[in-house]
Amino acid sequence: MSEQEIPGYTYGAEAVAKSPVSLEDFDLLKKTVLFTEEDEKYLRLAGEVLADQVDEVLDLWYGFVGSHPHLVHYFTNLQGEPDSDYLAAVRKRFGQWILDTCNRPYDQDWLNYQHEIGLRHYRTKKNQTDGVQSVPIINYRYLIAFIYPITATIKPFLEKKGHSADEVEKMHQAWFKSLVLQVTLWTNPYLRPEDY
Amino acid sequence: MSEQEIPGYTYGAEAVAKSPVSLEDFDLLKKTVLFTEEDEKYLRLAGEVLADQVDEVLDLWYGFVGSHPHLVHYFTNLQGEPDSDYLAAVRKRFGQWILDTCNRPYDQDWLNYQHEIGLRHYRTKKNQTDGVQSVPIINYRYLIAFIYPITATIKPFLEKKGHSADEVEKMHQAWFKSLVLQVTLWTNPYLRPEDY
Repeated sequence: MSEQEIPGYTYGAEAVAKSPVSLEDFDLLKKTVLFTEEDEKYLRLAGEVLADQVDEVLDLWYGFVGSHPHLVHYFTNLQGEPDSDYLAAVRKRFGQWILDTCNRPYDQDWLNYQHEIGLRHYRTKKNQTDGVQSVPIINYRYLIAFIYPITATIKPFLEKKGHSADEVEKMHQAWFKSLVLQVTLWTNPYLRPEDY
Repeated sequence: MSEQEIPGYTYGAEAVAKSPVSLEDFDLLKKTVLFTEEDEKYLRLAGEVLADQVDEVLDLWYGFVGSHPHLVHYFTNLQGEPDSDYLAAVRKRFGQWILDTCNRPYDQDWLNYQHEIGLRHYRTKKNQTDGVQSVPIINYRYLIAFIYPITATIKPFLEKKGHSADEVEKMHQAWFKSLVLQVTLWTNPYLRPEDY
C-alpha cells in the first residue's frame, strides 16, 4: 500500500502542527541516547530488512495486544468490545510507522509527526483520525511500558536476512534508541510544558 | 557502606508514602513488559555479578552526566556550578539503587520507594533529601531518555564474571525490563492522575 492510500496518514502535511520540542532540544535528546549518524545508517539497513516483514511484525504485535484485555481495552467501543475497524485502520499506519522509523530523516517534519502521533494517543485527538467512539485516552503508563516489547520483539525479524551478529546488534540498538526518542516525544502532550 | 549509613535512603521506612500505583496495576505493567519469575532469578544473578562493580558502573554514569552540560545542569547550584556535595550524596543512593534493582522483591515496599524516587526527581521533593539549592525539577524528557544509556552501558559489566552469552543476555533483558518498569513508576508524579 502506498503512503497516499493510508487513511489518516498525514506525514508532512500542512495540517500537522509544529512540534513544541525544538530541533535544538531534540539534538540534546539524541546525545542523551547516544544516537549518531551510525544509527541512521543501521536504521536504513533495518528498513531494508524489515520491508517485506511488516505484516509478520504487526501480526505478532497485534497478537500481543489482542491477548491482553488491559491492552485491547484501548481499542474497544463504548460497549467494551474490540472495534475491528479501528484496529485495522490503526494497523495500516502502524506498518508505515515501522518504515518511517527506519527510512525517514529525523528532521522538522518527522519531529512534527511524532507530536501528532502523541496527540492521537492523548485526549486531544484520540479516536478523531478514525472517527471512532472508544476510550478517550491511551493511559500514559502503557506508552512507556511498550518500549520493552516493541524493542525486544523486533530482533528476531532483524536476524532473518543473513546479516552478521554485529550488524543485527547495531540495527537493534539503533531501533531501541529511536523508540526511546519517539516515546519521549509522543508523551509530550501528557505533560505540563514546564515539567517536560 | 551499609544501607543504614546512606543519608536519605529511606527504603521501607514509615515516612515513605504509599504508591498511587496499586499492586494490581503493577502486575499488568509487568505483563506488558513480559516480566516473569525468570527475570527475578536473573536479576538476582546480576546482583551477584554487579556487587563488586558498583563503583565502576557509577564512575561510567557520572562521567557521562558530567561530560554533558544539559545533564549536569540538574546538579548545579543557584550559581550554575555543579554541586559536588549534592553529586556525592546522590551517588551513594544510586549505588544502592543498582543493588535494590537486582536484589529486592518487587513488593509494596519496593513500589512505594519507586514513587519516593519519582517525587525526588519532581518538584515535590527535588533537593529536599540533601538539603541543597539546585534547579527545581529534573525535566521529564531526560527520565525517559535515560532508559537507553542505563540499559546499554550495564551490559559490559554483566559480561565480566564469566557467564555464558545466554546468561548475560537474560540478565540484561531482566535489567532492561526492570528499568522500563521503574521509569514508568518514577514519572507518576509528573502526570495528571487521570492520564496516568
